[in-house]
Amino acid sequence: MRGWRIDGLQYARWSREVFEQMRAAGMDAVHATVSYHEDFAGTVRNLIDWNDRFRAHGELIVPAWSAGDIRSARESGRTAILLGLQSPAALGAEIGMVGILRDLGIRVMQPTYNNQSLLGTGHAEAADGGLTRMGREVVAEMNRAGMLIDLSHAGDRTMRDVIETSGRPVAFTHANPRAWHDVTRNVPDDVIDALAAKGGMIGLSLYPHHLAGGSGCTLDAFSAMAAGLARRVGADHVGIGSDLCQGQSDEVVAWMRQGRWTRDRTPAAFPAQPTWFETNLDFPALADGLSAAGLRGAEVDGILGGNWLRFLGDALEPA
Amino acid sequence: MRGWRIDGLQYARWSREVFEQMRAAGMDAVHATVSYHEDFAGTVRNLIDWNDRFRAHGELIVPAWSAGDIRSARESGRTAILLGLQSPAALGAEIGMVGILRDLGIRVMQPTYNNQSLLGTGHAEAADGGLTRMGREVVAEMNRAGMLIDLSHAGDRTMRDVIETSGRPVAFTHANPRAWHDVTRNVPDDVIDALAAKGGMIGLSLYPHHLAGGSGCTLDAFSAMAAGLARRVGADHVGIGSDLCQGQSDEVVAWMRQGRWTRDRTPAAFPAQPTWFETNLDFPALADGLSAAGLRGAEVDGILGGNWLRFLGDALEPA
Repeated sequence: MRGWRIDGLQYARWSREVFEQMRAAGMDAVHATVSYHEDFAGTVRNLIDWNDRFRAHGELIVPAWSAGDIRSARESGRTAILLGLQSPAALGAEIGMVGILRDLGIRVMQPTYNNQSLLGTGHAEAADGGLTRMGREVVAEMNRAGMLIDLSHAGDRTMRDVIETSGRPVAFTHANPRAWHDVTRNVPDDVIDALAAKGGMIGLSLYPHHLAGGSGCTLDAFSAMAAGLARRVGADHVGIGSDLCQGQSDEVVAWMRQGRWTRDRTPAAFPAQPTWFETNLDFPALADGLSAAGLRGAEVDGILGGNWLRFLGDALEPA
Repeated sequence: MRGWRIDGLQYARWSREVFEQMRAAGMDAVHATVSYHEDFAGTVRNLIDWNDRFRAHGELIVPAWSAGDIRSARESGRTAILLGLQSPAALGAEIGMVGILRDLGIRVMQPTYNNQSLLGTGHAEAADGGLTRMGREVVAEMNRAGMLIDLSHAGDRTMRDVIETSGRPVAFTHANPRAWHDVTRNVPDDVIDALAAKGGMIGLSLYPHHLAGGSGCTLDAFSAMAAGLARRVGADHVGIGSDLCQGQSDEVVAWMRQGRWTRDRTPAAFPAQPTWFETNLDFPALADGLSAAGLRGAEVDGILGGNWLRFLGDALEPA
């Protein structure tokens, strides 16, 4: 049996074409972002859109509420879609919303998205006060519920606070080592070390702003980074989280950055993807790069999906 | 004409009896808290309740959307009710909500209530990162709209950031000097100095947890504190913000503290008010204490209401 193929995060302009590409690439599961800035009502509307997609494209995709669902999806020749939130906006100030969102199928949530949230601080703020009073409650609640805490987009102190506070392993679904490319969205080595020491995972990102060399980053350079990281912390803690935003318009990246919290309406643009990673069709060839960088076959299989599958097998279950 | 009588904050269990006491005490205006933790929908519901009260008790109370409305209320023998929010929860992450809330009559808002908000940090958090990215936008928006920024319940760094950032004077509607009673809810001297230097005001609180000696604090001790503060920063910057929670049940103070953000349901209880300040009927006699503490008649009149009236004359107008 060939290895698992799981992408730790995508936010494509979802379409039949994208789902067909997932199938053509043999993707077993993709973690899809449901909401960025949306509140609870907006998130529910986005979930309704997902229900419509599952109905319209049911022979291609199926919702994943557990790792078992990912295994079943493979057996039925479909791609499992894991649903997550990139901010806690949908919670409002209601601790009980964690349970409600999990009942609705949300299995991953970021405590912060760039900015300060009620739970902690995002990487784009000037100062990071760490996990808040409510943040500590929500970490415990997500631990109980079996909702994966995703530290992508967090500030450094908040990253450290969550890793220290969480009773269960956490993840960066889409980020790279800051030692490789020094932007606040990437993760300092000591944080990756602490993450791995507690059983966590990092999904390496293919989004150009997270890549050394940006859009011009080569598969070799990316793979060498991945291999170095695997050697340092253990390949088991490494996966892929491509952050692929296939087909989205530039208005979408402006909205990601500006939401509705600022009057700033400076236009923004998606950077060009590296030519070797533009759609799900390019996912399988990551294996060639990782192998060429010296990783063994089992390590490559783990990074491309097996590690996420094992990790999610625990992370998505209630305590 | 006797001096103005304006209370910078109350959250009574509103009733005809309370409004009759306001009239009996000659209260010209009271700033009433509309919401603590409520989101926009909850805040609108609370405003509907206020509209019902204005209709049911229209010969006693009238809404104040400007200082002119306070003057008109006195002329018609009624108490003007100024509506405010003790947290920015109703904004969500929408900058445009400032304008919507002002259109609905909200004239005062705290950027934080004890905990971290999207705008800044409350006094009960362990760490205070100061004004956030969205916080800076909201300060500018409140400045433009003519919505008073109320720093009660803020953390120290957030207090300082707002005073430094705001283009217009701001206030603590209900707090005391920390040098007099050392709790984080009270205000350090350097912050009061910076506030006053920029034309701001502090409404002195009669809530026992803010008083040296708590429920046993005497009118003499309170008045001596007020007189000392007036001498130090100028009486013009001092008012009263009693924080009177007349008639509220103990469940209300538990809800104020715990909202819905925590699973903690430890019972809480309102402390007993000092015997000399239990209802609006006790407001006029504050003048006796302040006079006995050595304040001149014009200073006493200013502290009991004239200062708020002058201050609000500017603060409630759009820039």
